Amino acid sequence: MAGRERLLVIGGDAAGLSAASQARRRRDAADLEIVALERGRHASYSACGIPYYVGGVVDDADRLIARTPEEFRDRDIDLRLRTEAVEIDPSGGRVRVRDLASGAESWEPYDHLMIATGAVPVRPPLPGADARGVHGVQTLDDGIAIHRALDADAPRRAVVVGGGYIGLEMAEAMVMRGLDVTLVDAAEQPMTTLDPDMGALVADAIRGIGIALHLGEPVEGFDTDASGRVTAVRTGARTLPADIVVLGLGVRPGSGLARDAGIEVGPTGGIVTDRRMRTRTERVWAAGDCAQTRHLVSGAPVAIPLGTHANKQGRVAGINLGGGYATFPGVVGTAISKICSAEVARTGLNEREAAAAGFATLSAAVESTTRAGYHPGATRMTTKLVVERRSGRLLGAQIVGEEGAAKRVDGLAVMLWNGMTVEEMTGLDLAYAPPFAPVWDPVLIAARKAAERVERDMYDLD
Amino acid sequence: MAGRERLLVIGGDAAGLSAASQARRRRDAADLEIVALERGRHASYSACGIPYYVGGVVDDADRLIARTPEEFRDRDIDLRLRTEAVEIDPSGGRVRVRDLASGAESWEPYDHLMIATGAVPVRPPLPGADARGVHGVQTLDDGIAIHRALDADAPRRAVVVGGGYIGLEMAEAMVMRGLDVTLVDAAEQPMTTLDPDMGALVADAIRGIGIALHLGEPVEGFDTDASGRVTAVRTGARTLPADIVVLGLGVRPGSGLARDAGIEVGPTGGIVTDRRMRTRTERVWAAGDCAQTRHLVSGAPVAIPLGTHANKQGRVAGINLGGGYATFPGVVGTAISKICSAEVARTGLNEREAAAAGFATLSAAVESTTRAGYHPGATRMTTKLVVERRSGRLLGAQIVGEEGAAKRVDGLAVMLWNGMTVEEMTGLDLAYAPPFAPVWDPVLIAARKAAERVERDMYDLD
Repeated sequence: MAGRERLLVIGGDAAGLSAASQARRRRDAADLEIVALERGRHASYSACGIPYYVGGVVDDADRLIARTPEEFRDRDIDLRLRTEAVEIDPSGGRVRVRDLASGAESWEPYDHLMIATGAVPVRPPLPGADARGVHGVQTLDDGIAIHRALDADAPRRAVVVGGGYIGLEMAEAMVMRGLDVTLVDAAEQPMTTLDPDMGALVADAIRGIGIALHLGEPVEGFDTDASGRVTAVRTGARTLPADIVVLGLGVRPGSGLARDAGIEVGPTGGIVTDRRMRTRTERVWAAGDCAQTRHLVSGAPVAIPLGTHANKQGRVAGINLGGGYATFPGVVGTAISKICSAEVARTGLNEREAAAAGFATLSAAVESTTRAGYHPGATRMTTKLVVERRSGRLLGAQIVGEEGAAKRVDGLAVMLWNGMTVEEMTGLDLAYAPPFAPVWDPVLIAARKAAERVERDMYDLD
Repeated sequence: MAGRERLLVIGGDAAGLSAASQARRRRDAADLEIVALERGRHASYSACGIPYYVGGVVDDADRLIARTPEEFRDRDIDLRLRTEAVEIDPSGGRVRVRDLASGAESWEPYDHLMIATGAVPVRPPLPGADARGVHGVQTLDDGIAIHRALDADAPRRAVVVGGGYIGLEMAEAMVMRGLDVTLVDAAEQPMTTLDPDMGALVADAIRGIGIALHLGEPVEGFDTDASGRVTAVRTGARTLPADIVVLGLGVRPGSGLARDAGIEVGPTGGIVTDRRMRTRTERVWAAGDCAQTRHLVSGAPVAIPLGTHANKQGRVAGINLGGGYATFPGVVGTAISKICSAEVARTGLNEREAAAAGFATLSAAVESTTRAGYHPGATRMTTKLVVERRSGRLLGAQIVGEEGAAKRVDGLAVMLWNGMTVEEMTGLDLAYAPPFAPVWDPVLIAARKAAERVERDMYDLD
C-alpha cells in the first residue's frame, strides 16, 4: 500500500455524507482519511422534511437530522461545520477553505475530491427580494428561521411565490399553522411538471383547502415598510398584502465552484459525470443536486434536485471511492408530493417534455377510485398515461388523487424503466383486494384505454 | 355472413360475464346471440366483497352487485339465473340445462361455448360438516346466509376454519361484528402462501386484534346439539365451543362438468387453455377459477382463484370470441389482503415454491417504516425478497405491515414480470417524499441487502 490517502468531501448533506459513509465502510481510517466540509450549521438532515417541521407536523428540527457530527466523527469521518470551500485547485490537488467563524483561510489537500455542493435557490433580482420577512427554503437554517418567525411575529397573511413541490408544501405548512395563504406563480398552472389537465386538478385541490391561487402572474416586486420589513407582494395584476413571504422558485445546480475550477459543467448547469460519478477531471467526483444525470426515457441530460437521487449517487460514488464498483444508471423523473389530502405523482415525460424529446404521443386519462367502489375509504383518483404513437411504449404517467393514490406511481416507474408498452401493461398481475383497488386496477384501466387509442391510431395517416 | 351464431356462457360471474360483455361490444345481437346461465340467485357480483358485507363495512349486499340481470338483458345478453348446466355435449354442440325452480331440463345449442364455472369450495368429509350453523363462503348467497345468522341468532362465539385469505377476512368480519373469534388451521402458520417468518408476523397481527389462533391443529369434526345445530369444533388438541362456524378452507377449480365432457383438465384440476383462452376442444373456451394458467416465474401450470384473473381472462376470451385478438400471458402470483390494520401482500414464488420449481435461492428481509421515520403516520413494515442465487434475479416478494405497506407489492410484481435482478432494482427511480417513504424506499433497501448477499455468495462453493 502506497500510504494513507485523503478524501475531501465538499458538502455535508445527502450526497456528500452518503459517499463518505460508503467509502468508510470499505476502507478504514488507517487507509483513508475522510474530511467533510459543510458551510452551514447543520449537516446530514432531511431537506425534504423542512415543510413538515415548519407546519408543525414534525415537532423538533433535530428530528430531521439523521446523524450528528459526533456520530460521523465516531466513524472517523471528520465533519467540519461552518467551513466553506471557496476554491478548488485540481492541478494542485487542494481546496481553499474558509472557517466561517474566524474568517481564516487555508488549503486542504486531497487525493480524492467529492463535490456535493447541492443546489442554489433561484432568487429573482426583484426590488425588495432581500427584505426582512422574505424567506427562502433551501437549508434547515431557512426552515428554522421561518418556524421562528411564525412563532415570534404571529403573522396572519402568508404569500408563497412558486407553485412547484416546495412552494405547495410550504403553502400547506402555513395553512396548518393557521395563516391565510396565497400562492402566486408566473405559470398558468401549479406543478408545471404535470400536463395542464392534471395541473388543473391540483389547482382545484389547492383552492379546496382554502389557499388563494393566482396563476399566470409573475411577481414584480415586494413592498416594504419603513423598517425594511416586507408588507406586500406585487404582481402585474394585484398587490397581495403579506406578513411573511416564502420563495419557492426552485433551484439550480450549485456548480459554480466546480465550473470556476475548470471542471466540466453540462447544459443543465450540473456537473458532468459518468455513471460511476467521476467528473472529467482526474480524482474529482460529483454527486447530488450539483451534478447532472441522464433521463432514461428521453436520453437527455437532466438535473433533478431530489434527495433520493443524491443519496443514491453519493452511495455509488462512495462505493467506487472505497474500491468497489457501482453505477448510477440515470433517472426516469419520478416525483411525488402531498398537499393536505391531495396526492400528486409523476414519472417519465409529460406531453410537453415528450414532444421536446422528439416523440409523437397519445395520452389516456381515467378517473377511478382507489379501492373497490363499495369499500369505505375509497377516494377518487385520476391516472394519466403518455404513450408513444405506433409503438405504444409508455413514456410517462401522472396521478392526482387523495389518500392511497400517489405511491402507485412506483409500479408505473418500473414499467417505464423496463420499456413496457401499454398493451403489455394490460396483462400485468397487480394486487387486487377490495381495500386496495377496484377489481380492475386504475393502472390497468388506463393501460387498456391507452392501448385502444394506440390501436385505433394505426388507421390514421401521419 | 353465414347467419346468426350463438354463444352460450356457463357461469354468471366475473369471467363469464366479462366474456359476454366483450363479445357483445364487438358483435351485435343480429350477428351473435348470447345466453348466460347462472345456477345461483345472483350474478355479476364481487365475491371478494363478501367479508366486507358480513363485517358490516358494506351495508347492503346489493352494493356488491356490479350489474343487474336487467342491465345485461338491455345489452342483449340473456342472463338466466337459477339455471344450471348439467352436461356438455361437445360433439353435438349443446348443453343440457336444468331450470332449478321447475326442475325441467332441456338442451341448449351453441356455436361457441364459454365455460366459466368458477371454483368449488373444499369441504372436509368430517362428521357434522353439514350441520346448521356451519357456513361456507363461496357465493353471495353464502354471505347473505351468514349475515342473516349474525343478525337473527346473535351468536357470541365464532370459529373460523382455515387461515388463508378468506378465512382471515371472515375472522376480521366476525371481530367487527363483536364476536369472540377463534381461528384454527392444520398448518403451522396462517397464510401458507408466505414463508414461515412472514407468516409469523401475520400470526402476531391476528393475535394482536384479539383473535385466538390455534395452528397445527387439523379439525376432526363438529359437535351438534339435538336439533342438529353446531355447538363446537373439535381438533385433536381441544374442543372449541362455537355458535357459528365459517369454513374458509380454500377452493379447487370447478372443472367437473368440463372433465365429464372430455375437455382436457390439467394437473392443477383446472381446464387447460391456450393464451387466447381456447380449450383443446373445438369451439369451447374457458376462463376464471375453473381454468388453469401459467406461472410466469416457475413456468408451471397453476390455478389461482382470484377475481382479477377471472376478469382479465374473461375479457380476453370475449375479445377473441368477438373477432378480435387478445392473450392472457399468465400470472406472477400477486395477492394482497387486509385484516384490520394488518396488510399482507406477496408476489412471485416463496422459498418453498422456488425450491419446488428448481431454483437455488437466497432471501433478504428488511424492517422499515412506510414513511420518513419523523413523519406522523409512519408505520412498520417488513419486506422480504426471494432471489435466485448467482443470477440475482428476483423470484418473489412478500410484505407484512400496516396502513400503506401492502400495495407497494405492485412495483415488485412489475420488477418480477420484467425479470429484473436485485442489483438492477437498487437503481430504480421510486417515488420519495416524507409522507410516502423513507428516503431509501423499503424496496430499495431490501434490494441492496439482497444484492449484497448475492455478491457475497459468489465466494461460496456450491
